[in-house]
Amino acid sequence: MSELVITSPSNPRLKALVALRRRRTREDQRLTLLEGYEELALALDAGVVPRTLFTCPDLMLDASTQLEVVRRVAGLGGETVRLSRTAFEKVAYREGPDGFLAVVPGIDRGPNDLDLPKDPLLLVAEGVEKPGNLGAMLRTADAAGVDAVIAADPVTDWGNPNVVRSSKGTVFSVPVASAPTEATLAWLASSGVPLLAATPDTDTLHTDVDLTGPVAIAVGTEKYGLTDAVLDAATHRVRIPMAGQVNSLNVATSAAILLYEAVRQRSRP
Amino acid sequence: MSELVITSPSNPRLKALVALRRRRTREDQRLTLLEGYEELALALDAGVVPRTLFTCPDLMLDASTQLEVVRRVAGLGGETVRLSRTAFEKVAYREGPDGFLAVVPGIDRGPNDLDLPKDPLLLVAEGVEKPGNLGAMLRTADAAGVDAVIAADPVTDWGNPNVVRSSKGTVFSVPVASAPTEATLAWLASSGVPLLAATPDTDTLHTDVDLTGPVAIAVGTEKYGLTDAVLDAATHRVRIPMAGQVNSLNVATSAAILLYEAVRQRSRP
Repeated sequence: MSELVITSPSNPRLKALVALRRRRTREDQRLTLLEGYEELALALDAGVVPRTLFTCPDLMLDASTQLEVVRRVAGLGGETVRLSRTAFEKVAYREGPDGFLAVVPGIDRGPNDLDLPKDPLLLVAEGVEKPGNLGAMLRTADAAGVDAVIAADPVTDWGNPNVVRSSKGTVFSVPVASAPTEATLAWLASSGVPLLAATPDTDTLHTDVDLTGPVAIAVGTEKYGLTDAVLDAATHRVRIPMAGQVNSLNVATSAAILLYEAVRQRSRP
Repeated sequence: MSELVITSPSNPRLKALVALRRRRTREDQRLTLLEGYEELALALDAGVVPRTLFTCPDLMLDASTQLEVVRRVAGLGGETVRLSRTAFEKVAYREGPDGFLAVVPGIDRGPNDLDLPKDPLLLVAEGVEKPGNLGAMLRTADAAGVDAVIAADPVTDWGNPNVVRSSKGTVFSVPVASAPTEATLAWLASSGVPLLAATPDTDTLHTDVDLTGPVAIAVGTEKYGLTDAVLDAATHRVRIPMAGQVNSLNVATSAAILLYEAVRQRSRP
């Protein structure tokens, strides 16, 4: 296998790679970055075809085993490039890089691109900004078997490298989409999926509502919650009971509590 | 009110403050740091008496209202010190400091110091390292009305400034304790509190177990889970159902799902 090898940290290919940290560049080029061996393996299993895979064997935990993934990417028609340690450390964006960084197709699907099963369980995250929260919601959605996660009026794009990282790669295995809030609501209505809005301003608990049918669970920003547009369109408004002094659970935690209540109800014999 | 004013960033008082970022110093001096107006207000409401409050009105969002808290701290017998912006920025440890930094008594209680109600709901976090996860668990414990959170074999101390910050101050409102795992298990046994261990290696779901009585829910590290000592001592071992490809929920997410299942069962009419 003959690979391109880049040793100089000032190589223009590396500049192009660093440019993908900007959302604008990602959207223009319809590409994003995926760093880490385990994340890459998960994305490959989910059917992602990397455009280019940059590797640095010196940084790998177990190069003899892990280099197999280079052959796998090459077999899919992806370019593979080997970097010197200095060059790799220039393009890596996480602490403790493990020698794998891929350029993969961007994630810019709308709700209409989703293939929904009967009685889907959906998560709608409106306006959520922190990549760590979006990533955490994806991990939970993956575990809970959610059929799709839709970012409504997203502040942060799904391809944000910090979303990809904190999702542990599940952004490629869980069906995701994004759209303006109005378009998301119209799509839910036309798909016949009832909307469950989480808000502190109701007496109905999330455990009081039947979640066994098709349902989209909506959570809003940590600071302001859901917009009136979502609250007004909701079939049910529910709250998670809170005993304490801090009046807001983290948004990803709220999503987990709501989704797992749905899982509980849906698995009841 | 005449206050000490420090303008020089090389003042030795500030060095002593920065030294409290080290666990060893916190433990030796039995003190910790608390930054942020809202976090301070919550701690004061929970009965915390700051040793010293450092403020910087230039950095405050709303100095006219927020300076009231300086009088409150002085009224409790705490020293209050005003810092120049340069001086404050030297000692602040979070991005976007808001002009409030307090030195407060450390948190070094053991389980025997806890005052348990009848049928307590407890959370035991074994070996958890990431301050963000400990803080997130405290916020959830606060919301779920947990009676105490016990760190077993803690890698990170409750007084870690990043725990304090990510807990949004709930580390002062939720009863917390720490102890070696063996001592924690012995204390639970002598207190007659059954132990529920979360582990992927069981067929029993967390929703299959009665959580309405006294119970301690135990979660382990993200990487290795609970130790055998905890698993062997557990009254029940349960797993959270997982549909996805990533075989582990975040530890704070797991704790939230388990605690809110207990909340659901305990609030059933």
